[in-house]
Amino acid sequence: MKIRIGIAGYGNLGKGVECSIMQNADTELVGIFTRRPPESVKTVTNAKVYNINDLLDFKDKIDVLIICGGSATDLPVQTPEFAKSFNVVDSFDTHAKIPQHFENVDAAAKQSGKIAMISVGWDPGMFSLSRLYAGAILPLGNDYTFWGKGVSQGHSDAIRRIDGVLDAKQYTIPVDDALDAVRSGTNPELTTRQKHIRECFVVACEGADLNKIEQEIKTMPNYFADYDTIVHFISQDELTKNHSGIPHGGFVIRSGKTGINGENNHIIEYSLKLDSNPEFTASVLVAFARAAYKMNKEGMCGCKTVFDVPPSYLSPKAPEELRKNLL
Amino acid sequence: MKIRIGIAGYGNLGKGVECSIMQNADTELVGIFTRRPPESVKTVTNAKVYNINDLLDFKDKIDVLIICGGSATDLPVQTPEFAKSFNVVDSFDTHAKIPQHFENVDAAAKQSGKIAMISVGWDPGMFSLSRLYAGAILPLGNDYTFWGKGVSQGHSDAIRRIDGVLDAKQYTIPVDDALDAVRSGTNPELTTRQKHIRECFVVACEGADLNKIEQEIKTMPNYFADYDTIVHFISQDELTKNHSGIPHGGFVIRSGKTGINGENNHIIEYSLKLDSNPEFTASVLVAFARAAYKMNKEGMCGCKTVFDVPPSYLSPKAPEELRKNLL
Repeated sequence: MKIRIGIAGYGNLGKGVECSIMQNADTELVGIFTRRPPESVKTVTNAKVYNINDLLDFKDKIDVLIICGGSATDLPVQTPEFAKSFNVVDSFDTHAKIPQHFENVDAAAKQSGKIAMISVGWDPGMFSLSRLYAGAILPLGNDYTFWGKGVSQGHSDAIRRIDGVLDAKQYTIPVDDALDAVRSGTNPELTTRQKHIRECFVVACEGADLNKIEQEIKTMPNYFADYDTIVHFISQDELTKNHSGIPHGGFVIRSGKTGINGENNHIIEYSLKLDSNPEFTASVLVAFARAAYKMNKEGMCGCKTVFDVPPSYLSPKAPEELRKNLL
Repeated sequence: MKIRIGIAGYGNLGKGVECSIMQNADTELVGIFTRRPPESVKTVTNAKVYNINDLLDFKDKIDVLIICGGSATDLPVQTPEFAKSFNVVDSFDTHAKIPQHFENVDAAAKQSGKIAMISVGWDPGMFSLSRLYAGAILPLGNDYTFWGKGVSQGHSDAIRRIDGVLDAKQYTIPVDDALDAVRSGTNPELTTRQKHIRECFVVACEGADLNKIEQEIKTMPNYFADYDTIVHFISQDELTKNHSGIPHGGFVIRSGKTGINGENNHIIEYSLKLDSNPEFTASVLVAFARAAYKMNKEGMCGCKTVFDVPPSYLSPKAPEELRKNLL
């Protein structure tokens, strides 16, 4: 009686979910659903691959569908659509559009009587939970979120679009002095520039004007202009050899005061250091898929976020065991 | 329509709850209930003080009773007793006895239809939550919990019981090398001695044999024998001046692997740096009192722990606001 999981979409995130299911003895993978010709897809674990158009045939064979599409165009369409027939989990991460996505998905899931868990991952996701818990405990205080050291796909893509650039990888790096200032409890006000550095590894075309590329990167609005940016030009071989990973991570810190005159300071810090951003995100998705399954079995339905899930639902262990060994 | 809170027991923890209620605009303090003569108790905020024997008169005037007694003898009796008439929250922290305490309290709270939230604080409490979340996300991995730097009341008391000792304060200090080893992802096996140092500040009677006291501390079974222990003899003035605070804190780290061959490593770390252990614990109690109130209003009853509480219940903010601003 394992939890039967389907994966919709098979990029890095879908592969991560496939691997995570192997680590969770109470889950099993029913199949991977893709827009590509199924026979063209080689899976990590030899999982079965189906055309996404056949998904509805699996209505009674899948307990939870984990949707691994992109937030820009896939999830706004797929999550409400698939929630009509399945319990679903997605990692929708366009923060500003979460309320709208919630409304769309909630309507669909309430009508079908399914659970649709959105914006699961680490930010939004575990970082959001840290902000919620810490803020509820220390109402007088400030939140600080730092990202990195890690690869920003969006910033890497932006560099690649510059004339004369063949390939690029951008790392977002939190500034140690800013982290130390926050941890000291002084509640500093920090500018964008003070919080993060951007470090870029760029492969240029032969004969390209490197100074021009560097200036174009450093002055790019929204992406780089507000930051101290470091640009290195390297060979494609070096980029492939040393910068092929997708690490990420970051820090959520709350600094707050207690006591009748606010005389005592407290620092709550949650941090992640991840070798593989997609595999970690996938692991969070599978834990929340377990919760979605349990919540739906208890009769709950509608759109949910990480804020709505009793933590015990995430674990395969019985409540008694959790109280005995983890509390 | 604030949440009306009562405090049972008025030591450092009770005072912390009193201060925390002042910071939370949706809560109000009905009164403090004590075994001492009420008129002898001076409160921090001029709150009303009542004899604990009059508690039942407040059955309809208190929404949640926060029980601030000790885990050794107070809470095992008080929590099940008071749960017969009130929603209650306690900070029961004798880890090994939690299952028994849960059973006793659950029976009482189910009969009364109230919520009884036990073992709330930071360990058990927020540290337990960190262990649960991290273990659910990374099933292949190891948990590490470090405590400190902070004052251990139990160890300080143990030193004070030695002949020739007037006063003492003991700090538990995590070993930096051990923390670094854990954070490196090597999943080290660490002995008790490798994880923590114990540093003691001792005021001896005039003419006492300091060598003998130091040996007695360092060889004390359970408390110090398994640790590297540092003993400083200082004056009462110095102890009062430099060691009157009750700081504490610690680290919960999970190191786990993902990927088809476990090739990627991940570190999840939660840490606390607290100027006042009781005031922070009190702040956690008040947040969970809010949750207890909401859960009971929705018709839930019985014994609950931090594992059972949907995080959104801890916040005074509406779910829409949480999704918009924190997710």
